[in-house]
Amino acid sequence: MFEQIFENVRRKSPLVHNITNYVTVNDCANMLLACGGSPIMADELEDAVEITAVCSGLNINIGTLNRRTIPVMFAAGKRANELGHAVVLDPVGAGASTLRTDTARGLLGEVKFTVIRGNISEIKTLALGSGATKGVDADAADKVTEKNLDGTAAFAKDFARRIGTVVAATGAIDIVTDGVRTFYIRNGRPEMSAVTGTGCQLSALTAAFASANPDRPLEAAAAAVCAMGLCGEIAYNRMTDLDGNSSYRNYMIDAMYRLTPAELEKGADYEVR
Amino acid sequence: MFEQIFENVRRKSPLVHNITNYVTVNDCANMLLACGGSPIMADELEDAVEITAVCSGLNINIGTLNRRTIPVMFAAGKRANELGHAVVLDPVGAGASTLRTDTARGLLGEVKFTVIRGNISEIKTLALGSGATKGVDADAADKVTEKNLDGTAAFAKDFARRIGTVVAATGAIDIVTDGVRTFYIRNGRPEMSAVTGTGCQLSALTAAFASANPDRPLEAAAAAVCAMGLCGEIAYNRMTDLDGNSSYRNYMIDAMYRLTPAELEKGADYEVR
Amino acid sequence: MFEQIFENVRRKSPLVHNITNYVTVNDCANMLLACGGSPIMADELEDAVEITAVCSGLNINIGTLNRRTIPVMFAAGKRANELGHAVVLDPVGAGASTLRTDTARGLLGEVKFTVIRGNISEIKTLALGSGATKGVDADAADKVTEKNLDGTAAFAKDFARRIGTVVAATGAIDIVTDGVRTFYIRNGRPEMSAVTGTGCQLSALTAAFASANPDRPLEAAAAAVCAMGLCGEIAYNRMTDLDGNSSYRNYMIDAMYRLTPAELEKGADYEVR
Repeated sequence: MFEQIFENVRRKSPLVHNITNYVTVNDCANMLLACGGSPIMADELEDAVEITAVCSGLNINIGTLNRRTIPVMFAAGKRANELGHAVVLDPVGAGASTLRTDTARGLLGEVKFTVIRGNISEIKTLALGSGATKGVDADAADKVTEKNLDGTAAFAKDFARRIGTVVAATGAIDIVTDGVRTFYIRNGRPEMSAVTGTGCQLSALTAAFASANPDRPLEAAAAAVCAMGLCGEIAYNRMTDLDGNSSYRNYMIDAMYRLTPAELEKGADYEVR
Repeated sequence: MFEQIFENVRRKSPLVHNITNYVTVNDCANMLLACGGSPIMADELEDAVEITAVCSGLNINIGTLNRRTIPVMFAAGKRANELGHAVVLDPVGAGASTLRTDTARGLLGEVKFTVIRGNISEIKTLALGSGATKGVDADAADKVTEKNLDGTAAFAKDFARRIGTVVAATGAIDIVTDGVRTFYIRNGRPEMSAVTGTGCQLSALTAAFASANPDRPLEAAAAAVCAMGLCGEIAYNRMTDLDGNSSYRNYMIDAMYRLTPAELEKGADYEVR
Repeated sequence: MFEQIFENVRRKSPLVHNITNYVTVNDCANMLLACGGSPIMADELEDAVEITAVCSGLNINIGTLNRRTIPVMFAAGKRANELGHAVVLDPVGAGASTLRTDTARGLLGEVKFTVIRGNISEIKTLALGSGATKGVDADAADKVTEKNLDGTAAFAKDFARRIGTVVAATGAIDIVTDGVRTFYIRNGRPEMSAVTGTGCQLSALTAAFASANPDRPLEAAAAAVCAMGLCGEIAYNRMTDLDGNSSYRNYMIDAMYRLTPAELEKGADYEVR
């Protein structure tokens, strides 16, 4: 199944509009190119709404949000909704500040998202209205383990059903659910968290996958999560004793560039419940 | 000829002011350092105009433009004109949105550019007032091929003569013309388009080359285009079966850092008509 | 001594708030992760003040400053002072424009910094009110050499004592002083200046080291400077005939990721007077 989904990305080369932070934006652009998509960034109101229209997907990432770009996120999100485009929300740091929490929750109220992709603390913040996010990382108390997996999945499932959106809560074990079916994904490496923006890159990737597979948002999101994790594994295997997080960053993007749909199908490590 | 032009860059180490997008800005900075230049970025009005004055060249790139930075592009451009500095325009995404098209054309009306460097769709947008740019890439219908080469070159030549500026329309075959003489350049690799910002890097590079060679803007632009394409070739030859677009990015900048003026002279693949 | 200081960084994993330029921000984030810290970026007023509070350190870097972010630097700096957090100032380009000089000096008047980290021209600009900074690099006339070392150190020492802040003036020889004791540091490689943002990365690193060692700001700053220089040496030794400044950037961050406290202790090349 993931083979076909990834083939659609490579074949359609979806143009994805990103309103995103300036920290990891270059890596998001190269990751989009690596998967076969095409990136464009625009965050000025009149520019963004028009750019949204020429794209097939929109990725809204609230890291380094500001009062100029926040209204643009709302406007572009609504425009993408009107056009029936895939829209992804990455609520970076929701729970770490009021502005981030309020913006993410405000967006949730006015824009219909195809997929929300965040760490578990960010997802809890969105679902419950408050959370304990440690900066841009999940709080230790929230972390998904084999022990709390079922409870966390039930929580995400309930949230996804309530808002009618695919929820991808990523961490040591990733949970991707539409409220009916849930993917438990075990691809990835813990070392990925030592590279800035792997979450941001995954959200951009999810937008590309969802754009190229408009009828299967759940599977598209799950495939993107598996693909990112698999590239984390492939890149890790390539590392030498001299390599650290900067080379690891490069190797992950390289791995996505080289990844074939068949390899994704074979390497994806998930179960559906 | 290109040997001397590149030697001037290495020897003078031109300080280039960049008003550019936040997606590819780091790569532009490292590419400028790699060629022997020195980068500085400033996009706040009072800061930028003063920074322009201490530099020897200005590179205006309209990607991720916004209402705060647009007036800065005009002001810095005019200041650079007063000082007789080299000024390069990269009309990223002109044709993809009204704001980008209008800004690029507005700049063209008020600032005298030394070189305009864009893909063929962006150049057509500037010349004709409207265009069909696919995001930040040239539209397929516009792409320069051996078949439409002469017609495209005639178009660029006419535009260059009309505005009195060197026009560099880059793609599979690059056309660099001042309206009198035209360089047809065949350096480069198609894989370069899988790296975000190779066009932006080339524009920054062009600003450095034009700054260090004030009397020869046509040759400086052609040399920069050849140098970038040649580095794309050198970097491509270095790639292993594990490398993808992220390593390719690094290798291109590395190649520029290592490139000698004599190697540029030897590797430049062009004809002049 | 540096072994313990670096161990504290790795053990405490300080969350560092960065208000910094968009040119080198990604490298700062990866360098913070490489040393064992955790980065967060926020530059919108209400967001930043709250983010400052959840962090243990603040790094203010004035590169690409603008009228929206300047007041945020003041507000976050004051908030960090109230909370007793480590605060680092990187006066990028002070001396190159009035806005940068005035902002850096204004910050110095209203925020109590733990460490100021800049090149010698920037430090002179702060101390004397005017300076001759060549873009973002030190002016040739200011450069620290064995010949002017004692005079420069006396100048930095006097400035540090006067403002009650650790001053780190980095260049070919680095001077780190609190006005009483002075570290003369000879780690590093001249090739580091061909990589954009090594100074910015060092300032971010210094914020992490000072945050994790609140009682020893002088030693923390000196350790950070040695660590960065040592990584520049390790990375240089790794370079092949094909590598240039882009790979060098990656290798330096990789080296920090791999560096152990014991290796820092052993490789630090300094004398204290």
